[in-house]
Amino acid sequence: MRILVTGAAGFIASNLIPRLLNRGDVVAGIDNFFLGKRAYVVQHENFTFHELDLLDLDGVIRILEEFKPDRIWHLAANSDISYGTKYTDFDLKGGTLVTYNVLEAMRRTGVKELVFSSSGAVYGEPTIMPTPEDYGPILPISLYAASKVACETLITAYAHNYDMRAWIYRFGNIVGPNPTHGVIHDFVLRLRDEPTKLTVLGDGTQAKPYVYVEDCLDGMEFGVANAPGHVNVYNLAVDDQTTVRQITDWTIEAMGIDRGKIDVQYGDSPRGWRGDVPYVKLDTSRMTKLGWTPKLSSNEATKRTIREVVEQFREGPLK
Amino acid sequence: MRILVTGAAGFIASNLIPRLLNRGDVVAGIDNFFLGKRAYVVQHENFTFHELDLLDLDGVIRILEEFKPDRIWHLAANSDISYGTKYTDFDLKGGTLVTYNVLEAMRRTGVKELVFSSSGAVYGEPTIMPTPEDYGPILPISLYAASKVACETLITAYAHNYDMRAWIYRFGNIVGPNPTHGVIHDFVLRLRDEPTKLTVLGDGTQAKPYVYVEDCLDGMEFGVANAPGHVNVYNLAVDDQTTVRQITDWTIEAMGIDRGKIDVQYGDSPRGWRGDVPYVKLDTSRMTKLGWTPKLSSNEATKRTIREVVEQFREGPLK
Repeated sequence: MRILVTGAAGFIASNLIPRLLNRGDVVAGIDNFFLGKRAYVVQHENFTFHELDLLDLDGVIRILEEFKPDRIWHLAANSDISYGTKYTDFDLKGGTLVTYNVLEAMRRTGVKELVFSSSGAVYGEPTIMPTPEDYGPILPISLYAASKVACETLITAYAHNYDMRAWIYRFGNIVGPNPTHGVIHDFVLRLRDEPTKLTVLGDGTQAKPYVYVEDCLDGMEFGVANAPGHVNVYNLAVDDQTTVRQITDWTIEAMGIDRGKIDVQYGDSPRGWRGDVPYVKLDTSRMTKLGWTPKLSSNEATKRTIREVVEQFREGPLK
Repeated sequence: MRILVTGAAGFIASNLIPRLLNRGDVVAGIDNFFLGKRAYVVQHENFTFHELDLLDLDGVIRILEEFKPDRIWHLAANSDISYGTKYTDFDLKGGTLVTYNVLEAMRRTGVKELVFSSSGAVYGEPTIMPTPEDYGPILPISLYAASKVACETLITAYAHNYDMRAWIYRFGNIVGPNPTHGVIHDFVLRLRDEPTKLTVLGDGTQAKPYVYVEDCLDGMEFGVANAPGHVNVYNLAVDDQTTVRQITDWTIEAMGIDRGKIDVQYGDSPRGWRGDVPYVKLDTSRMTKLGWTPKLSSNEATKRTIREVVEQFREGPLK
């Protein structure tokens, strides 16, 4: 198969692309290196990389016309909620407009299949937990999540009007090697530079389901192979949750820092930043019914990732 | 109160503005005359009109800085679903980006209250009818509805992050004088030019709740005065439905056309066009519980509007 991956130098795509290549797919990738890192770009004879901002619609169309993908994995996105609250057009451009461009380029060049990474943040602060895919009302509290909803609805409308198929995955927190952001990434880099002090956003009680990236990709691929619908929407999560306090403790331990010699400062409220949803629990039963369950629990995924990222960033952050 | 109205030369705003002025509000309006008509712009000493495209963020900010509104009624929108399917960036620009600009201008100038006209189309083709506001999943089938969802979620995110209040109304089909589009508008103009033939999109069985514009505005104002939330979402509809076949018959009759001398051609399928939702029934109980019910039924609203539009367009379409 010929597969185009957006956000190709980012966290999830850089874990996906080797899997696709290993099974014989021919892959092209696009990234603008806003969040993505040059160190994460895969080198392989069946992989072509394009440095491009997806806001350039003509550029996207040109790549689709040349590469003629059978399917697109659209993984490019801002993933920093508080950045999007500060720069209010960031998710609008980097999420909504970019997704419009991908869909419009698909329509104009006849590409029919899209895999999309959405987020459990679309549910806002739901009154039902674990939250199922059919939950309503959809009232997100961050511009990041608002953009994910906007992308989802662009996808459903394009699918209906232009005969496309789509798989939309609403992620829990995905963790694993090649991080570009997130709590583990930040803690490891900050503790490396300053092992005697750690300031934590929020009071540490935030509890969310952390999914190991290989599980995430297994689940996405299982859904693409087995979900029967025209537009398929699945939560992709695990059933347990890990707290920020646990991640703090485990990271300090994995860095070999003496707990007695570090001053950890927690915030006063559970919400780490405006727009953050501190307690997330996603209903995973739709995915289970389809026949797929993750291998690692949230705590296992978190611990393993901490070990891997401590190792990966031993010499400092990658470029 | 100082109230800014977008889409000020459009159907709903041109019915709203005289009401606001009559109760002593000072009003400013913005329109770019894409759908709005110069004939609908209100002339009044307490009303100022600005010809501006809301895509001009600096222009919107300038007007807000000068006028200092207490509240914005954001009614500007594309309302032609099939146009948005043909020109895929139309709702993205004229709906999503424009709403972002209004919210961003509010944030930068400290305006805190927004009234927004959304649509029952956000529910897509729901499995529950009448459809309540909490319905999920939100999987719209038109780019028009996708944009309405995108606007709603931008509003909820802005309200959460920047301490704004909002009233979001998901409309049935609103009808009344000063139309710029819609089935009654189209039938009256087409029958005026060609009274012996009428081609109807869809098989005429499409059934939707039609709300008279004065009822719509009563309901919106009642909600603004009485809905207690930070972000308030209400269906604004009536409980009965009118079919396109009924509208066809009543319009032909109101135009004084002999039924024996006109050839009415219906389509083969209920869906009038791609992205059209042929059967709509919105749950109105949340609005009823708040204390408001419409005066006219769907059939009454439709019949009255047909009489009024036949009269208003007797000399042809207004400019």
